[in-house]
Amino acid sequence: MWLNALGGKSLFKKRHPDVGARPGTLVISEDASQPKIHVMHFTPEELKEEDVTDTEQLRAAYDPNTTTWVDVQGFGDEKMIRRIAEKFAIHPLAIEDIINVPQRPKAETYDDQILIIVRMVNSIGQAEIDIEQVSIVLGKNYVLTFQERYGDVLDPVRRRIRSGKGRIRTEGPDYVAYAIFDTIVDAYYPVLEEIGNYLEDLEITVVENPTPRLLKYLNQVKNRLINLRRAIWPQRQVANSLARDEHPLIDPNVRIYLRDTYDHCVQSAEVVEMYREMVTGLMNMYLASVANRQNEVMKVLTITAAIFIPLTFMAGIYGMNFEYMPELHVPWAYPLIWTTMILMAGGMLFYFYRKGWIWNRDDDEDFPGKDGGP
Amino acid sequence: MWLNALGGKSLFKKRHPDVGARPGTLVISEDASQPKIHVMHFTPEELKEEDVTDTEQLRAAYDPNTTTWVDVQGFGDEKMIRRIAEKFAIHPLAIEDIINVPQRPKAETYDDQILIIVRMVNSIGQAEIDIEQVSIVLGKNYVLTFQERYGDVLDPVRRRIRSGKGRIRTEGPDYVAYAIFDTIVDAYYPVLEEIGNYLEDLEITVVENPTPRLLKYLNQVKNRLINLRRAIWPQRQVANSLARDEHPLIDPNVRIYLRDTYDHCVQSAEVVEMYREMVTGLMNMYLASVANRQNEVMKVLTITAAIFIPLTFMAGIYGMNFEYMPELHVPWAYPLIWTTMILMAGGMLFYFYRKGWIWNRDDDEDFPGKDGGP
Amino acid sequence: MWLNALGGKSLFKKRHPDVGARPGTLVISEDASQPKIHVMHFTPEELKEEDVTDTEQLRAAYDPNTTTWVDVQGFGDEKMIRRIAEKFAIHPLAIEDIINVPQRPKAETYDDQILIIVRMVNSIGQAEIDIEQVSIVLGKNYVLTFQERYGDVLDPVRRRIRSGKGRIRTEGPDYVAYAIFDTIVDAYYPVLEEIGNYLEDLEITVVENPTPRLLKYLNQVKNRLINLRRAIWPQRQVANSLARDEHPLIDPNVRIYLRDTYDHCVQSAEVVEMYREMVTGLMNMYLASVANRQNEVMKVLTITAAIFIPLTFMAGIYGMNFEYMPELHVPWAYPLIWTTMILMAGGMLFYFYRKGWIWNRDDDEDFPGKDGGP
Amino acid sequence: MWLNALGGKSLFKKRHPDVGARPGTLVISEDASQPKIHVMHFTPEELKEEDVTDTEQLRAAYDPNTTTWVDVQGFGDEKMIRRIAEKFAIHPLAIEDIINVPQRPKAETYDDQILIIVRMVNSIGQAEIDIEQVSIVLGKNYVLTFQERYGDVLDPVRRRIRSGKGRIRTEGPDYVAYAIFDTIVDAYYPVLEEIGNYLEDLEITVVENPTPRLLKYLNQVKNRLINLRRAIWPQRQVANSLARDEHPLIDPNVRIYLRDTYDHCVQSAEVVEMYREMVTGLMNMYLASVANRQNEVMKVLTITAAIFIPLTFMAGIYGMNFEYMPELHVPWAYPLIWTTMILMAGGMLFYFYRKGWIWNRDDDEDFPGKDGGP
Amino acid sequence: MWLNALGGKSLFKKRHPDVGARPGTLVISEDASQPKIHVMHFTPEELKEEDVTDTEQLRAAYDPNTTTWVDVQGFGDEKMIRRIAEKFAIHPLAIEDIINVPQRPKAETYDDQILIIVRMVNSIGQAEIDIEQVSIVLGKNYVLTFQERYGDVLDPVRRRIRSGKGRIRTEGPDYVAYAIFDTIVDAYYPVLEEIGNYLEDLEITVVENPTPRLLKYLNQVKNRLINLRRAIWPQRQVANSLARDEHPLIDPNVRIYLRDTYDHCVQSAEVVEMYREMVTGLMNMYLASVANRQNEVMKVLTITAAIFIPLTFMAGIYGMNFEYMPELHVPWAYPLIWTTMILMAGGMLFYFYRKGWIWNRDDDEDFPGKDGGP
Repeated sequence: MWLNALGGKSLFKKRHPDVGARPGTLVISEDASQPKIHVMHFTPEELKEEDVTDTEQLRAAYDPNTTTWVDVQGFGDEKMIRRIAEKFAIHPLAIEDIINVPQRPKAETYDDQILIIVRMVNSIGQAEIDIEQVSIVLGKNYVLTFQERYGDVLDPVRRRIRSGKGRIRTEGPDYVAYAIFDTIVDAYYPVLEEIGNYLEDLEITVVENPTPRLLKYLNQVKNRLINLRRAIWPQRQVANSLARDEHPLIDPNVRIYLRDTYDHCVQSAEVVEMYREMVTGLMNMYLASVANRQNEVMKVLTITAAIFIPLTFMAGIYGMNFEYMPELHVPWAYPLIWTTMILMAGGMLFYFYRKGWIWNRDDDEDFPGKDGGP
Repeated sequence: MWLNALGGKSLFKKRHPDVGARPGTLVISEDASQPKIHVMHFTPEELKEEDVTDTEQLRAAYDPNTTTWVDVQGFGDEKMIRRIAEKFAIHPLAIEDIINVPQRPKAETYDDQILIIVRMVNSIGQAEIDIEQVSIVLGKNYVLTFQERYGDVLDPVRRRIRSGKGRIRTEGPDYVAYAIFDTIVDAYYPVLEEIGNYLEDLEITVVENPTPRLLKYLNQVKNRLINLRRAIWPQRQVANSLARDEHPLIDPNVRIYLRDTYDHCVQSAEVVEMYREMVTGLMNMYLASVANRQNEVMKVLTITAAIFIPLTFMAGIYGMNFEYMPELHVPWAYPLIWTTMILMAGGMLFYFYRKGWIWNRDDDEDFPGKDGGP
Repeated sequence: MWLNALGGKSLFKKRHPDVGARPGTLVISEDASQPKIHVMHFTPEELKEEDVTDTEQLRAAYDPNTTTWVDVQGFGDEKMIRRIAEKFAIHPLAIEDIINVPQRPKAETYDDQILIIVRMVNSIGQAEIDIEQVSIVLGKNYVLTFQERYGDVLDPVRRRIRSGKGRIRTEGPDYVAYAIFDTIVDAYYPVLEEIGNYLEDLEITVVENPTPRLLKYLNQVKNRLINLRRAIWPQRQVANSLARDEHPLIDPNVRIYLRDTYDHCVQSAEVVEMYREMVTGLMNMYLASVANRQNEVMKVLTITAAIFIPLTFMAGIYGMNFEYMPELHVPWAYPLIWTTMILMAGGMLFYFYRKGWIWNRDDDEDFPGKDGGP
Repeated sequence: MWLNALGGKSLFKKRHPDVGARPGTLVISEDASQPKIHVMHFTPEELKEEDVTDTEQLRAAYDPNTTTWVDVQGFGDEKMIRRIAEKFAIHPLAIEDIINVPQRPKAETYDDQILIIVRMVNSIGQAEIDIEQVSIVLGKNYVLTFQERYGDVLDPVRRRIRSGKGRIRTEGPDYVAYAIFDTIVDAYYPVLEEIGNYLEDLEITVVENPTPRLLKYLNQVKNRLINLRRAIWPQRQVANSLARDEHPLIDPNVRIYLRDTYDHCVQSAEVVEMYREMVTGLMNMYLASVANRQNEVMKVLTITAAIFIPLTFMAGIYGMNFEYMPELHVPWAYPLIWTTMILMAGGMLFYFYRKGWIWNRDDDEDFPGKDGGP
Repeated sequence: MWLNALGGKSLFKKRHPDVGARPGTLVISEDASQPKIHVMHFTPEELKEEDVTDTEQLRAAYDPNTTTWVDVQGFGDEKMIRRIAEKFAIHPLAIEDIINVPQRPKAETYDDQILIIVRMVNSIGQAEIDIEQVSIVLGKNYVLTFQERYGDVLDPVRRRIRSGKGRIRTEGPDYVAYAIFDTIVDAYYPVLEEIGNYLEDLEITVVENPTPRLLKYLNQVKNRLINLRRAIWPQRQVANSLARDEHPLIDPNVRIYLRDTYDHCVQSAEVVEMYREMVTGLMNMYLASVANRQNEVMKVLTITAAIFIPLTFMAGIYGMNFEYMPELHVPWAYPLIWTTMILMAGGMLFYFYRKGWIWNRDDDEDFPGKDGGP
């Protein structure tokens, strides 16, 4: 059902703790994947990568002279998650927001950390979208990222770190956090493009074959756009607040880059709004084309009935069995009645032609913007 | 009637004093329940609970070294309510807002108290909701809560106090007030989830069986959502102002928790908005499906009439009683007329088939997003 | 006509001076009532009331040690109005706003006076409303009120002054102005309640008997709500600015009370908005029910035509007068044709039954939220 | 066409210079009227008026001890306009805004001048409106006004200056500018009143005779209201900024008067919004009444068809020529068939009566708000 | 397809780098034109123009005593673009925004440069529009402009520089940047005028020949207006921020000119909004005229059927073959039946005439605003 397709419900069916539970209560679904922890330590000169299974190793990893990026995928082990949170002194409310997905995109400052929650989109074919939460914890010399499911969306960032080119190795953890955020925001473009193509298909269908199910598809797309907007708008605010407000953890140079991310969010948001207006336009065209088809059905009925009902009446007259009907005995009465009937039918046809109900080729010709088109 | 179901009217039919009455006038309905007062005194180490019937005991209860939570349920005894108000020096306007429910959710500062008015929702089966006001008075070392009817919605908070775990015993009355507020806001989630499920049911029905009463149900849900929004939006502002503004009674630590409550309010508000857009979408689908059904009825009429009316006319012709109708006497005239009629009917059927009015299986096949679906 | 009923036009047909007239020009209609002036002087201990006919007496009345409330009803004597304005040094623009009703609700500060213009509503049966302007001039130790027509809406305030209870005798003229303002705002509740009841009646009618005139009534209510909103929204701002901004004439204590008045305005505004959404919902239900009825009409036509037109054609066939129609002479032809006809009619009926066009009791049964209802 | 009637296009077809032209380029249409310059010099005691043809005289007119009002009507002589601009040192952008009408209403500060651009409305019968720009340049001791066409809208201000009464002679050029602005704003009231009357006429027509052209008229009015709003809304901001912001050229006393002008703008804007909502309401009523009429047409068709088609079928049966039709030979068969037919027709009529499709007087009676009306 | 016509998709299909690419990555399409560089150096006295092919020459061009305008058209050579960026020390993000078109219009401050991104519109006949990005980099004594395609839209500015008249040679690079911005904004007027004319054509067609394709054209125009709005609105903010905020690179004198550009943006935006409302109005008129035509079709059907079906029934009665039908043998029965039928038909016609369904000339006459029109 489209309600599901919407993703809205699943978005909403967030794993919330019981009503009145202590803040910091984590709710982990039973089929959650086991956490995979990948750590990158790097200085401009050096890069060390490792997969961590024992959280005790993380302490060692925590080195003030290098930038450290700890990537956690899968929330299936509450104890391990809690240990990571302890190691990095993450606030209980922050860890609750990270684990109990989905949360609204936001940037929150804790004592010496910034928690950035963003939504990542993926297209799963046919303009259907999948939305997942990525949480970024930015500290003094480390970045933590958390994702519920395994995924490779951040691989471009890893490749940039490994290649050692660009500013990512030299700029510190705030730039890494920006790069992650920016990568996630950039991933909206291909999804929007796919939806655009899909809308174009729907548009052709609206004109050529406006079946009832089309409206359902339009509604689906509309709901997906509502959903995307819900993801993009707060993200916009996140980018804006990171780019405009002064945070001690974010360098002014990096803020210029975040301003760019903000622009991308705004552009995506605008495209979503534009698509929504286009869906509304398509819906109106669909409804108008339904009304139009009804009109056409009606015209066929009316023309048939208006021509033949009077003729049938005339035939009925001379089917009466009155004894004294002088016309019946006149030889030219039968040809005369045929002539009359043909004239009547012709008159009706001419009337309908004049009304433009039949053979109306003018539709194609009289329009002002015909050649070249508006 | 849905106007009732809406709860809107009853929400509005607040028990307001007579026009021009002195501020502080209390209006207590005749069937109000007798007040039940439950008091909890606690320090991090100790917990004392008691049910109070004589308000004089409250003075004793008022101890500056412990946190005290006085819970009042039922407003049936004006004198007792007034005595409680006196004991805790509640401003006459505050007590008026507490008793003359429902008021708009708000947080108001009086000299050394904060009055927080929130709305609690309950689902009463079948997506129907019940809204009740909870008033919280936060003082220097005490919290008062007021509810009109008996209820157990705050039991989780009580359990947390009794268990002695977490910060609730150590953080003081502001944290208790937060815990109460948060518990009430959390209770919106299951209600929203239930409405979501109900919408999903309605959606299936819209597609399969769009009866007129469906619109009524959709209107009901819409009105409930209007109502929920009216409760949630001001609550959002309450949480925001408590979390952002500096109040001497609220510790900065607790403000971080209130920020979390604010996020939950925002999320609920967003879900309500999303549901409202979905209801609008369902209404449009309903109307389109009605138009569609009408189209179908029309087609049946048109096809029947357009085929048989001309045939009937032909039969009528040869039912005429003219004396000189040569065709009547030709032996092969009768078979010929049958052939003509069958050809005419076949021609019409073919025309309608070409128009896609009958046997139109293409509906199911030609759609771009068919396999996998959009 | 509903345009009148709207009150909007009369609201707008304010008695404006000629274009380009000097500011301060008063426009008094010819049938205006003669001014009645009622003065109350009071201290916490004492109360003196008098009806004043000679404006010279007012000077004497102006005593700095007591609070004075001068109530003027009826604007029929321009000279007298001007003399009162002089006595109390009211700015020409202020007196113009007081007399040339209706003005937009507003609070304006002049040198040592605040002019508060509010709108009072009365219900005149059947959800019809009447709106009148009340102007309050608050000075250092006096309050002036102006109303165009005689009325007793402020009697509750007078009674409170006479009774000597509450703070009204002790708090000074700012509290009196608040009491007047609050009384006027409180008068919106019963009017809104009446409109709510009327909407409930309309709602039942929409379901049971959706006649065309219903839409007219709905439009009327909608226009009245537009009108009420126009009165309430600026009043909200008035209350807010009086409660939030610092005026030397208004004591901080009284500001707390005005905050309460502000809350009442907000609540009324919300109820009006909710009603507007409900009216829109009812209009949609009306339109859907019209479409539905049309559908029903259509079905009757289609069923009748689709059953009998083919049968009539068959009868027509055997009414033809061809000489060589072998069937006519077969004895069992007539019973056979009846059988065929009955089978055809039965087939059609079955087809329509399957389509759910006749005897469709399923409407009542298959709905998800049937028992208990949504 | 209504697009013209709208005035919108002509409004928009402002005489803009070529793309990329130097700022300050003036575009004067060929049929522009020759400028007429009327100058008034006045002190509280003295008034001198003259018609100026030689712009050299203006220098002499520029006397710091008196207030001077130079009124220019007609832009037909670019050189003369430029000389005036030089005399008064008007900024090239300001003179461009004055001549290249229409500009958006605005108030702009130049070094020692304020340029106020406002829109004047005139009614040209039948709710049609004409909008013209008036530009006011307020200097230290002079006011300049510019109008494209000759007109007498500012005559009331002139009369007030000549009469010597009121503050206009004593308050200086800022008060004169206010008086001009106020006069122009006041001129909106009679226009709005005329539109209100016209809407009332349309409303009666919607109920009594909803012809298709009505929708066109409604659209016209709507477009005019859009246009009026475009004129009024920025004017509101102009009045507000003049009344609230501190300009050295505008005395605080005069600001109080401008506050009043601001109120008038707000009121006009509100009336326009209200009218727009009323037009929307009328459009909905029109559409509903069209749907209703269609329903009525449908009912006539259905009733006729549903009664006579079955009867015709019955007659057709006994018009068949089968040899063996025993009923044909029974003497009471003919009366019996008549009886049957009459019963069938009566049954159908009763059925339709029960459905409320015919003789349905209940429409007029069962409504809740019947007596007295809602 | 209109989705293309919309330009929206192509607008959106911006050449974005791969997801996760390093900021500053340039994406240049394969068919991009080779860059053409035109440089103008000028002082109030002198002007030197040259076409530059070797970017090394630019260094020489960079002379602090003159104003330099470097115009780059075509992005086909990434290396050359990068060299230009290096020469003028353009920030990597700025050059990314310049090359990876389209970006949202914006004004961004870098250390000693302002990047202004605006959208230029061209009409390509028949109200179709083409939108291209122009990027302006304003430095201490130079202006750079970048366009993707070759074009001559800035020629008027060049001509003004060459002519040496006006302030453009004396005011420095900020004035040149203003002149470029203003020229681009001015180019919106003729495009809007063309759309206005096109709307007028559509409006005539809606009234005279409302074919289904009209709705498609209306949708096209609407989408173009959405697109124009997306270009104009942020441009408005750009102009506003340049005119209001203090930038060391922009002289206060030039800010006054930018205020004028801001006004032009606002006016264009208003016209776009007005057009959108007009398109909506036309759509409603189209839908109403469709409903109306359907009504007309219906009436023809109903009148024909309601007149002839009963008559046919009567004829059918006397076509029955009952043996005992006394009427059949009465000589005056046949004339009598004709008389009856004519009376019945006349009665029906009169009934329909009274209903206003036929010969209803009243449409043209009874309207209140007939002469002169509304």
